[in-house]
Amino acid sequence: MRDVAIVGVGMTRFGELWETSLRDLFVQAASEALHSARADHLDAVFIGNMSAGQFVGQEHLGPLLVDHLGMAGVAAGRVESACASGGLALRTAFVEVASGMSDLVMAAGVEKMTDSIDVTEVLATASDQELEAYHGITFPGLYAMIARAHMEKHGTTEEDLSWVSVKNHRHGALNPKAQFPAEVTLEDVMRSSMVADPLRLLHCSPVSDGAAAVLLCPLDQAKKYTDRPVRIRASGLATGSMALADRKDIAFLDSVQLSAQRAYKMAGLTPADMHLAEVHDCFAIAEICCIEALGLVACGKGNAAARTGETALGGRIPVNTSGGLKSKGHPVGATGIAQAIELCEQLRGEAGARQVKGARIGLAQNMGGSGASSVVHIFEGI
Amino acid sequence: MRDVAIVGVGMTRFGELWETSLRDLFVQAASEALHSARADHLDAVFIGNMSAGQFVGQEHLGPLLVDHLGMAGVAAGRVESACASGGLALRTAFVEVASGMSDLVMAAGVEKMTDSIDVTEVLATASDQELEAYHGITFPGLYAMIARAHMEKHGTTEEDLSWVSVKNHRHGALNPKAQFPAEVTLEDVMRSSMVADPLRLLHCSPVSDGAAAVLLCPLDQAKKYTDRPVRIRASGLATGSMALADRKDIAFLDSVQLSAQRAYKMAGLTPADMHLAEVHDCFAIAEICCIEALGLVACGKGNAAARTGETALGGRIPVNTSGGLKSKGHPVGATGIAQAIELCEQLRGEAGARQVKGARIGLAQNMGGSGASSVVHIFEGI
Repeated sequence: MRDVAIVGVGMTRFGELWETSLRDLFVQAASEALHSARADHLDAVFIGNMSAGQFVGQEHLGPLLVDHLGMAGVAAGRVESACASGGLALRTAFVEVASGMSDLVMAAGVEKMTDSIDVTEVLATASDQELEAYHGITFPGLYAMIARAHMEKHGTTEEDLSWVSVKNHRHGALNPKAQFPAEVTLEDVMRSSMVADPLRLLHCSPVSDGAAAVLLCPLDQAKKYTDRPVRIRASGLATGSMALADRKDIAFLDSVQLSAQRAYKMAGLTPADMHLAEVHDCFAIAEICCIEALGLVACGKGNAAARTGETALGGRIPVNTSGGLKSKGHPVGATGIAQAIELCEQLRGEAGARQVKGARIGLAQNMGGSGASSVVHIFEGI
Repeated sequence: MRDVAIVGVGMTRFGELWETSLRDLFVQAASEALHSARADHLDAVFIGNMSAGQFVGQEHLGPLLVDHLGMAGVAAGRVESACASGGLALRTAFVEVASGMSDLVMAAGVEKMTDSIDVTEVLATASDQELEAYHGITFPGLYAMIARAHMEKHGTTEEDLSWVSVKNHRHGALNPKAQFPAEVTLEDVMRSSMVADPLRLLHCSPVSDGAAAVLLCPLDQAKKYTDRPVRIRASGLATGSMALADRKDIAFLDSVQLSAQRAYKMAGLTPADMHLAEVHDCFAIAEICCIEALGLVACGKGNAAARTGETALGGRIPVNTSGGLKSKGHPVGATGIAQAIELCEQLRGEAGARQVKGARIGLAQNMGGSGASSVVHIFEGI
């Protein structure tokens, strides 16, 4: 397999972007990525998108989006793994370049959610339709059960959950692309509306529009496009049981652990080698479970990490310096690519006020549904 | 890149399979493929599916389906390119194995269409939502315009279209997995209801349920799984303009030609080297356009091929010996994989009454929408 690098990045602001269509969101992000790499062609494009068919009545995004980019003809396809669609697109592009099949490949993600009046119902189609969604439960409820299980097993408190939101908003306040670039206090979070006990509004990531794109090429061609390539050291993809009812322990995310193990093995690295991480905090409890399953903290100890500052900027292992899904926003198909972009900026030393000093190796973890799929990438600044 | 072979195949019957859910269709096809290769593990699974979110309220098929196969944990994802989703899944699996990322990989396709009351509207989301679907046109209308253009430009007649259906039903009558394994006469076709002038009911492929799966591994490991591997010589993917209004000539399918050129180049072969082909006859006119764009007949001469017997069993270049989408059925995500299975059976000499004598090299072409995406694979029996 060839070594692979990211040589260009582009993304829209995340938010309620009423004035911009799905295709225009993609074109903005993709054009910025091409421009950043001084590239005028592409060999292939892989687009992560969860549900444009349901959200805006549009499947077949591969040809549609490259056509609107002015590049009809280019090989293109859409990949989907619910909210991990962006991570899956990155993995697909990584393998495409590593294989030798293509040289200059775009991995993009896009979602246009705010045009739909059924967002929660559409998102619920990422759970098990027959065992979960059909019976009326949606993702806040599924993650609330995960939170309850974590509380019972590990003594996690509502305050622990709330510190995750406080931390991520503190980071996101430094990110000009964030949907909610504003700090919130512990009291703000603890007093926000209850959505699904124990999860309150400010424990939940928002509904968002947005797009993100990265350009990949063989590492040995990277200097053609950029002075600061970021190497993709590893890509790990795994699945787990779809329905919570089928899991031995719903407070632990098997797929996240397995995807991380595959990535660490491929990179020849361990959790201790990571200087920062972007993880999938669709709900505050998800960040806690993910950092445990990734091995960034000990199992059962994820609850204290935000409260103690361990995962804050300046802490031992900063997590979600971008603001995470909570503050930056969560246009589901774009999230995995946006995580990669945050790591590129950090590992290039270009993250401004969010910069993790000396960051050289970082990890991105993107998750689908209530954790039935997970993708982990490890990046190295060079 | 490593050489890649298909070492196992499985598929359900195609049809109105009311008694079988999407997940069970997949498990039937996947289990048969595993069994045929005496395999008890998988490194990765890629699933082609167009619109389960819209058809049956279920996205996130990767983890769901491997979980229901009893293999939770295995890396999995869904890929989509409308009706070319199966072909895209095969390409994704091919690159995965060729890269060295995985050794034993399943490419599958599945679609459950008959549970939906909005099939035509859902399928229309594979056209350009803003330029086409929103204004009320659906695929019979889009292909009718292509047919009219071909008639005007090349003198194609309604009888030419009808001979495609007669031929494919004659082939499909020999296929026990076909949805409509019955011959139809020229008169049957010419007298069937008008759907979108000049396309009649028997010029149109049906609405279908079904699943298909193939197993891929490096060619040098193939003997572990089968005595009769089929080598994948090439994989070509291309896109074209999404909306008909954006095309220079709607009677010619640019994406099909480009995907074929990429595949022929990769294989070092020409159209004249093909012994048979499965092509995307979602409507009779599509087969005519595809065999022209693939170079199997001269441009403008596709209209005569079925009538003269050139593309029939026993003819110069048999096309759609499986019965094609018209007779075999068209569960859209599964079609590209089913095409590969027909070629495997032919190139192994196991196609029974449909056998093309001495077939050693064959081509499969799977198309999305009105031709905005196309995937071509070339196979060789060894």
